[in-house]
Amino acid sequence: MRHFSLDQIKEEDSFFRRNLINCLSGYKSLNLIGTKNTKGISNLAPFSQVFHIGASPPLVGILFRPHTVKRDTLENILETGFFTLNHVTPEFFKEAHWTAADWEQSEFEATGLQEEYKEDFSAPFVLGSPVQLGCSLVETQTLKINQTVLLIGGIDHIFLDEKGLRPDGSLDLNALETVTVSGLDEYHVGRKLARLTYAKSGKFPEEI
Amino acid sequence: MRHFSLDQIKEEDSFFRRNLINCLSGYKSLNLIGTKNTKGISNLAPFSQVFHIGASPPLVGILFRPHTVKRDTLENILETGFFTLNHVTPEFFKEAHWTAADWEQSEFEATGLQEEYKEDFSAPFVLGSPVQLGCSLVETQTLKINQTVLLIGGIDHIFLDEKGLRPDGSLDLNALETVTVSGLDEYHVGRKLARLTYAKSGKFPEEI
Repeated sequence: MRHFSLDQIKEEDSFFRRNLINCLSGYKSLNLIGTKNTKGISNLAPFSQVFHIGASPPLVGILFRPHTVKRDTLENILETGFFTLNHVTPEFFKEAHWTAADWEQSEFEATGLQEEYKEDFSAPFVLGSPVQLGCSLVETQTLKINQTVLLIGGIDHIFLDEKGLRPDGSLDLNALETVTVSGLDEYHVGRKLARLTYAKSGKFPEEI
Repeated sequence: MRHFSLDQIKEEDSFFRRNLINCLSGYKSLNLIGTKNTKGISNLAPFSQVFHIGASPPLVGILFRPHTVKRDTLENILETGFFTLNHVTPEFFKEAHWTAADWEQSEFEATGLQEEYKEDFSAPFVLGSPVQLGCSLVETQTLKINQTVLLIGGIDHIFLDEKGLRPDGSLDLNALETVTVSGLDEYHVGRKLARLTYAKSGKFPEEI
């Protein structure tokens, strides 16, 4: 095993360190966040820091790191109160990555991804995404340590490609071809090992 | 596309709703968190809510949801200030899942996973894990909305299986066989699509 102490991590050059530290948590979720500003200009940006906060009521959390992520998305959500989350597939993961560039116009227009509007929801969904969520702002908190902003959103609408919805409510992410990201620039799909029975102390988990 | 409004989500039974909402963010990181209480009893538990907070200094965040996760891990970290994060591989993902059961003794003893101690670090690592991090408590914040606790940890030690470390500092998670989780009980490995060049507005991303 290769060992890095904190002092050794600090001594590495910033490019090496950033690549390494960004990989340490493992595979990350990938979502395109769609918003619109008060002038009506749409915005789309990739995020790997979206996570489950609660099922009842249904809530998601998003971390916005001040120095590494464009702030348009956060500002649009704070201004309008609405945003969408959209899973990415192998068919458009390069366009999804490209939305992170510094564009003057809307990232939809720039990258060729198409806006979709439905159910009177004001923020744009990504046409062709197999999991689309319409969300509204609930609250934000700022972390003292490095000014990272944690935003909590409520889930108002769920749109799903039928092929990925199982009878028990779980999603077959392999069938949906949902993409996951590692580090700053590496994209993957998942290959299922197994679903396991609820963990009980008396019995080794079995495959469902 | 299947559509669920918030009202329809609330009308679904709690089992269906919990499965569905837990899947919506996409693939999640999977880490075993190793701790020890002040009496010297070790603890091990699976977490899918570990994420990158910053590279300089190197920081990780963990979300602890009060009603769905055992509190031993959080209490041990608050008492002692130290914990480990350990990637899971296909070789022991069932044991990793099993640590979530309600055990009276240490989860290491119960499931057969082995403790490893090194560099005078007081919390236990998981022997055989290809990515092991020794971390210390920096701060915690409690979310108003549902009492979820966000814990920030500093990374003091990184141990890596050499086969997964690339010259630029990034990790080859496919080579390390890092496992990712979706929903509450489904485990996957990753299959790489591509790494992409830094996103620039003038040029479509290329594979590295």
